[in-house]
Amino acid sequence: MSWNIFGRLLRFTTWGESHGPALGAVVDGCPPGLALSEAAIQPFLDARRPGQNRFTTQRQEADAVRILSGVFEGRTTGTPISLFIENTDQRSKDYAEVARAYRPGHADYAYDAKYGLRDPRGGGRSSARETAARVAAGAVARLVVPEVGISAYVVEVDGDAIDPAAFDAAEIARNPFFCPDAGAAARWAGLIDTARRAGSSLGAVVECVAEGVPAGWGAPIYAKLDADLAAAMMGINAVKGVEIGDGFAVARASGEQNADAMRPTNNLPSLSGKGIGGGGQSAPPQFLANHAGGVAGGIATGQPVVVRVAFKPTSSILTPVPTITRQGEATEIATKGRHDPCVGIRGAPVVAAMMALVLADHKLLNRAQCG
Amino acid sequence: MSWNIFGRLLRFTTWGESHGPALGAVVDGCPPGLALSEAAIQPFLDARRPGQNRFTTQRQEADAVRILSGVFEGRTTGTPISLFIENTDQRSKDYAEVARAYRPGHADYAYDAKYGLRDPRGGGRSSARETAARVAAGAVARLVVPEVGISAYVVEVDGDAIDPAAFDAAEIARNPFFCPDAGAAARWAGLIDTARRAGSSLGAVVECVAEGVPAGWGAPIYAKLDADLAAAMMGINAVKGVEIGDGFAVARASGEQNADAMRPTNNLPSLSGKGIGGGGQSAPPQFLANHAGGVAGGIATGQPVVVRVAFKPTSSILTPVPTITRQGEATEIATKGRHDPCVGIRGAPVVAAMMALVLADHKLLNRAQCG
Amino acid sequence: MSWNIFGRLLRFTTWGESHGPALGAVVDGCPPGLALSEAAIQPFLDARRPGQNRFTTQRQEADAVRILSGVFEGRTTGTPISLFIENTDQRSKDYAEVARAYRPGHADYAYDAKYGLRDPRGGGRSSARETAARVAAGAVARLVVPEVGISAYVVEVDGDAIDPAAFDAAEIARNPFFCPDAGAAARWAGLIDTARRAGSSLGAVVECVAEGVPAGWGAPIYAKLDADLAAAMMGINAVKGVEIGDGFAVARASGEQNADAMRPTNNLPSLSGKGIGGGGQSAPPQFLANHAGGVAGGIATGQPVVVRVAFKPTSSILTPVPTITRQGEATEIATKGRHDPCVGIRGAPVVAAMMALVLADHKLLNRAQCG
Amino acid sequence: MSWNIFGRLLRFTTWGESHGPALGAVVDGCPPGLALSEAAIQPFLDARRPGQNRFTTQRQEADAVRILSGVFEGRTTGTPISLFIENTDQRSKDYAEVARAYRPGHADYAYDAKYGLRDPRGGGRSSARETAARVAAGAVARLVVPEVGISAYVVEVDGDAIDPAAFDAAEIARNPFFCPDAGAAARWAGLIDTARRAGSSLGAVVECVAEGVPAGWGAPIYAKLDADLAAAMMGINAVKGVEIGDGFAVARASGEQNADAMRPTNNLPSLSGKGIGGGGQSAPPQFLANHAGGVAGGIATGQPVVVRVAFKPTSSILTPVPTITRQGEATEIATKGRHDPCVGIRGAPVVAAMMALVLADHKLLNRAQCG
Repeated sequence: MSWNIFGRLLRFTTWGESHGPALGAVVDGCPPGLALSEAAIQPFLDARRPGQNRFTTQRQEADAVRILSGVFEGRTTGTPISLFIENTDQRSKDYAEVARAYRPGHADYAYDAKYGLRDPRGGGRSSARETAARVAAGAVARLVVPEVGISAYVVEVDGDAIDPAAFDAAEIARNPFFCPDAGAAARWAGLIDTARRAGSSLGAVVECVAEGVPAGWGAPIYAKLDADLAAAMMGINAVKGVEIGDGFAVARASGEQNADAMRPTNNLPSLSGKGIGGGGQSAPPQFLANHAGGVAGGIATGQPVVVRVAFKPTSSILTPVPTITRQGEATEIATKGRHDPCVGIRGAPVVAAMMALVLADHKLLNRAQCG
Repeated sequence: MSWNIFGRLLRFTTWGESHGPALGAVVDGCPPGLALSEAAIQPFLDARRPGQNRFTTQRQEADAVRILSGVFEGRTTGTPISLFIENTDQRSKDYAEVARAYRPGHADYAYDAKYGLRDPRGGGRSSARETAARVAAGAVARLVVPEVGISAYVVEVDGDAIDPAAFDAAEIARNPFFCPDAGAAARWAGLIDTARRAGSSLGAVVECVAEGVPAGWGAPIYAKLDADLAAAMMGINAVKGVEIGDGFAVARASGEQNADAMRPTNNLPSLSGKGIGGGGQSAPPQFLANHAGGVAGGIATGQPVVVRVAFKPTSSILTPVPTITRQGEATEIATKGRHDPCVGIRGAPVVAAMMALVLADHKLLNRAQCG
Repeated sequence: MSWNIFGRLLRFTTWGESHGPALGAVVDGCPPGLALSEAAIQPFLDARRPGQNRFTTQRQEADAVRILSGVFEGRTTGTPISLFIENTDQRSKDYAEVARAYRPGHADYAYDAKYGLRDPRGGGRSSARETAARVAAGAVARLVVPEVGISAYVVEVDGDAIDPAAFDAAEIARNPFFCPDAGAAARWAGLIDTARRAGSSLGAVVECVAEGVPAGWGAPIYAKLDADLAAAMMGINAVKGVEIGDGFAVARASGEQNADAMRPTNNLPSLSGKGIGGGGQSAPPQFLANHAGGVAGGIATGQPVVVRVAFKPTSSILTPVPTITRQGEATEIATKGRHDPCVGIRGAPVVAAMMALVLADHKLLNRAQCG
Repeated sequence: MSWNIFGRLLRFTTWGESHGPALGAVVDGCPPGLALSEAAIQPFLDARRPGQNRFTTQRQEADAVRILSGVFEGRTTGTPISLFIENTDQRSKDYAEVARAYRPGHADYAYDAKYGLRDPRGGGRSSARETAARVAAGAVARLVVPEVGISAYVVEVDGDAIDPAAFDAAEIARNPFFCPDAGAAARWAGLIDTARRAGSSLGAVVECVAEGVPAGWGAPIYAKLDADLAAAMMGINAVKGVEIGDGFAVARASGEQNADAMRPTNNLPSLSGKGIGGGGQSAPPQFLANHAGGVAGGIATGQPVVVRVAFKPTSSILTPVPTITRQGEATEIATKGRHDPCVGIRGAPVVAAMMALVLADHKLLNRAQCG
């Protein structure tokens, strides 16, 4: 993970600015022979796509992906896969003021402090538009881990949480909030509409569950599955917190409450005497709880991998906020561009993509070392 | 960050098991000419050292560090620094039962599922004893970032939080809990004693603040300072959650509440016309809040970098918990060894070490790209 | 250096196949503030461009580069630079036979053995066309090391070497062979014409010299400047040997003959007491010879860095050669496509590009560790 | 490959100076379950060990290796393997003069130019003593590739080459020169004795062949097997040239001469319809020659992998050579320490070790991507 390259074996490099001609991802290290076409990627981009309803930014982007390399006759060849997305709706005029003064909560000042210059058009490289490239790369990663089912959804907006008892996976795709609880979705529509009309913004929490991750993926000590997930999620724009399993709640639990007790999956002892370089001596256990979120010692336990991610409210708001100009003079700035009132919502497909990318990388890492 | 190697430019590799003859760290990429001796490292190891009071494991380890390479006449030479710590108190007999059955909440099952075998003596490589090597490496890292002051302390034990108004930095070293609030420290002594006598365990939250981090350290997009910190902290044994700045609280804040407004540090415009490859056009701004925890877009803003880390209660408890044997049969296990009743407390020096290591790495990364 | 990514800090990723729609490079880690435009890159691509005379393949490619990201108002921003080159002349019909049987000396069989499938159109990813992306990336790297002058030229074709006494740097650009000796260039025209008309091919040796590399770039032990150069050069298509300095000739020299004696550059002792983290206590010495080729212990000595690279004859020849089909049956193959009769010639700009990329990476690496 | 870390997946880090208390290697990423003990490593160290006859340095080192981690009950556990070798014969007094002036041909000046200080005792980190750690790591790597047979031997000393017709593999271990030709060994004894008595030194060429490398190991474009071998070999102390297969001779061959024609291994078509992610559609071909040295397009072809490496004469000679002091004044230096008169000879076990390490790494890399 180095600057604009993510991953160890399944690596992807992203490039492109919010208002440049295009953006893209180059996926390196993909196994050969996987069926891949633009049609396999586009639905994931469509889920993240802006401008589809009044709850997201009104920027209109087709986000149509092109595969420029790495696929021959519909199959991956093992060579780098270049994914290319044109930018079609860049109204740079909206951003003239951004060049003059730093938007609080944005990366404007930090980029200038680091590089001595920055591309102010739409936030340049720091724009969440970069996440489109991640979602495209994530669609490739999903093909690498067909044994895993990944679901990401919003569990909280502005402190208003879903009711776990009302959880309905089918509901997630039915509302514009990736919300698994129809009742919460209805309430959030009101919350977000109010914020949008006030030129304000709201925070959110996204949860992501990966089922079917085999016990053994992941690795100690500095390639821990949960540490990689933490980096992957914390690196998404606007994220300020990451939890695995019970997360911060464990700090208030006793050892007895937090124990993930195990029982045999069935009463028969395992017949398999698994040999060198790979694997359990017993049938996978049944776990009675999953406080750990599917990871122990950095290694998957075979239970669902559970991550929760906190998104801050969009920093772009209509209320003027005190700031400074590039020349260091006091001023105020109100951000008039087109923005998501609750950036966490469109974060859900990005979280799912990063989960897929981390898991695919660890599948290959595990296969390398343990056969 | 690959298996047992952490970092990009200032890299360290750790090795060693809980009950092997020794453990160590090799620090690679350290700048030359820094004054380094065992005496500069030992105090950090002493702070983490077990067996110093009744609130931690009674395992007695001198944790005396030896420098085997990379230093000549008291100065780093730019070559790898080999840090060596002997294990002196390994009572392997305590761990016979661990070889037979999996301890819930530990990495026993996961290691077996991955590798097909494991070193059961004291948890082998998955033991928190490995963190001694990190603390030693972290002491070297601190020499690389003399401009930064790092402080880590416990802010919550078993849900009992410190009173921010009672925060006293000098208090941290005065009690065995790295607690900055004398009142809380007194309460925690009771909590932990009770848990220890009951063979139970408690969770904790550690906070770490780094002051003096220059604006510009860190980097987009996959080398973000906050993402690296998230990985570094989530990779510490027993950690299940990481927050930067306001963390999960941002999900409940509005854009207005979360704005980190800026003002000029003084009323004079900057005189410095900073050139290519490095840096702000204006004097560093004054921030009116630090909801972001010192990082925007993955890049330091010049404010204190603030991280909070959730530790689960020690998994080793006296209450028998249902589990399975290596052969997949149902059994129960109670862990009778010597353990910390609240592993989060000794986590504080480890959190500080990881902060130092991440910051030192980013200082070098920033210098490489931006001069 | 991982699959399709090269470098440690100044990293570039290339993508694209010989007969895909395009190919490109993403350059990551470039310092900010450098003046960069397509016009700064195009001349290097033009030098490598095919179809310019009868001595190279007749494939016509404009090789026009576009910069899609990482530059704002004519300056690098520190974010990834996406370089994009369209393929305009891909006559895939020429390559039907290649899909059926393996061309000896090409990577056809090896790709199939590895991946189980391959893109046979023009050799797919294994085509030397990929080197266009390296040359584009190399042009960016040259901007990172303005203190260095890099020159690559052909010193031998089919065993016919230049006369060192006739070396004329100005001559290199005057003939189609990057030959610094006008007499040799005239002879080579005959040699290559004969080989071309016979459908045969010839080998060549390319030499590359970098002047102005400061003493101190490079690093022990596994990031040695010469080791990195060896990897960079051996990784170019058709290369089978690499020498630094006197190369294989050292194996026949005595210690006395091989000694690179030093003298003070002038008789005045140095006044500079260079401090920590960087640098010689004395003025740079005068070397009386440069058998070492500018590198000692993996670190530049301040003398010219000298590399020599052996290119095999193009594997594509008209004479039928015994081979096997994909189904394992005996057959013969003669390669009728458009090919360079002496691929080593167009290798010269690629060698220069790789030299620039390795040096730029080491400049940043050295700055990171030694300030 | 970063400073003192080599490899991508099977990574090793070395540490230690010539005259420090010890040196070592930490091998990370080793597959679990391999039988490993000190006894499996020691013979390789013994082959490289100094002081065994009059043709090598008279420094007496037991080079006894200890395994400090990563092995439990005789098997690798998948965790880092710490290999530890004590230095027992460091007569630092021999090296007082080295601190004063730079030895031509050594890395003294370059280290000072880079780091501003250096450990002059025996060359510090730049000493060939570091290669003991590589040899120990290489012994572990051999366990990872049991299907491969690796042999390294000296083919030329001071321009006196072996007679290929007299090649006898059994002879290699019978003489102190790793020479497969008994007649050449006898001649070399005279050559080296003469050089030794004159305080002079000689160069040598080492060849290394790996048999049994499966077609498909290796990878395009920047992880080419031959490029990795080139880096591995060029990074060994005193190496100035590397060839794969026919090496520089290809530059003088025609396309017809250089063609590696193929025939079916037998007349039966392959029955195996190998699926996705791995492998050839046909039985491995019979190659009629191996000009390519077992690598095409960076990928193994299934033929023997052949590398040749040129070692310069030992830079330490008794004849005084002009040089400068650290203060930049003219002086002369003659190196009186204990040195190998022909350092290339003891290079053979190091070359073999690096071959094993590169192949083991590529086995894991290939398994990761292609299953």
